[in-house]
Amino acid sequence: VWPLTLLLHNPPLLLFQMIVWEQEHFQGKCQEFTSECTNIMNCGFDNIRSLRVESGAWVGYEHHDFQGQQFILERGEYPHWSGWSGSLSYHVERFMSFRPVYCASHRSSRMMIYEKENFMGRTVELCDDYPSLQAMGWMNNEVGSMHVQSGAWVCYQYPGYRGYQYILECERHSGDYQHWKNWGSHAQTPQIQSVRRIQH
Amino acid sequence: VWPLTLLLHNPPLLLFQMIVWEQEHFQGKCQEFTSECTNIMNCGFDNIRSLRVESGAWVGYEHHDFQGQQFILERGEYPHWSGWSGSLSYHVERFMSFRPVYCASHRSSRMMIYEKENFMGRTVELCDDYPSLQAMGWMNNEVGSMHVQSGAWVCYQYPGYRGYQYILECERHSGDYQHWKNWGSHAQTPQIQSVRRIQH
Repeated sequence: VWPLTLLLHNPPLLLFQMIVWEQEHFQGKCQEFTSECTNIMNCGFDNIRSLRVESGAWVGYEHHDFQGQQFILERGEYPHWSGWSGSLSYHVERFMSFRPVYCASHRSSRMMIYEKENFMGRTVELCDDYPSLQAMGWMNNEVGSMHVQSGAWVCYQYPGYRGYQYILECERHSGDYQHWKNWGSHAQTPQIQSVRRIQH
Repeated sequence: VWPLTLLLHNPPLLLFQMIVWEQEHFQGKCQEFTSECTNIMNCGFDNIRSLRVESGAWVGYEHHDFQGQQFILERGEYPHWSGWSGSLSYHVERFMSFRPVYCASHRSSRMMIYEKENFMGRTVELCDDYPSLQAMGWMNNEVGSMHVQSGAWVCYQYPGYRGYQYILECERHSGDYQHWKNWGSHAQTPQIQSVRRIQH
């Protein structure tokens, strides 16, 4: 990525920095965060309706205490809930908690995916981004279990990084996700059709 | 990607193959395609509400004759419009035309992005996937113009491959997209915050 970094514009001073607004399009009450927030209402917000990530990768949640739908948030501007929400069929316009995501070096991210739960059945090691697991040879539209060896990953319900999002991290559950119910409190099926590494 | 290809499951017999259904969840009238369709109504469909891509990468359009919102479609299952639609704020439940996307070798995909229209201002060459252009050093949330040197790319309005999608191809307009109005008939702003290569 060196060509882009050559013209690096205002390099981040903090490893993790995010500014959130109570209204869409960066309007209304505003606050900067450099670490996790378990309940935005404790900061006097009724909701988050727009945000800008200045540095680091973050994960946002539908409910307080990191519950409900998950949204990966990377550096850039999100003027409206549609910029981060994964599922269009089940709209999420609520955003009540968030935390930083600690990643390994992008290049060294590794994850094993397994055909069946509890790390059984056919398995492959992923070390790249896969907009379609089936295009790369995976046998169907489901993954039974996953083990994150290094880094942090986003898994998606549909190809092309669409649908429900699940953030999986080496730093959590020792990287073990033995059943789709462990992927997140909103997980309803083992459907996973695209997977990518989270970059800093 | 060799670990996955080792267990390649029913390898595609055709370079481009897609099956579409008139109803959600692969129900109702169904037809297989191996090449473009300019208007699904000419095949007796009133709309496409679910599909499965068997091989190749395709681009779907909101309107007939490749007009309106664009959706990248990669190998896998799309049971509902929310699996392909990019923008949640402007729902698209219509899917009236589609065509194959011809890609260069994934590894050799190259694109130049420019700060201003008509290939002016600061520029960088992209040859990888960028879930956040700003994280990689791009100066703001906009791109003025783009030139695809090799392969085919998807550009997205928001970070993390979300929001409006624009499919840009070396094979079209000689790869030149000198103004955001050339990105697609639905383009309304120069906002581009994530970019990735299209793989076969």
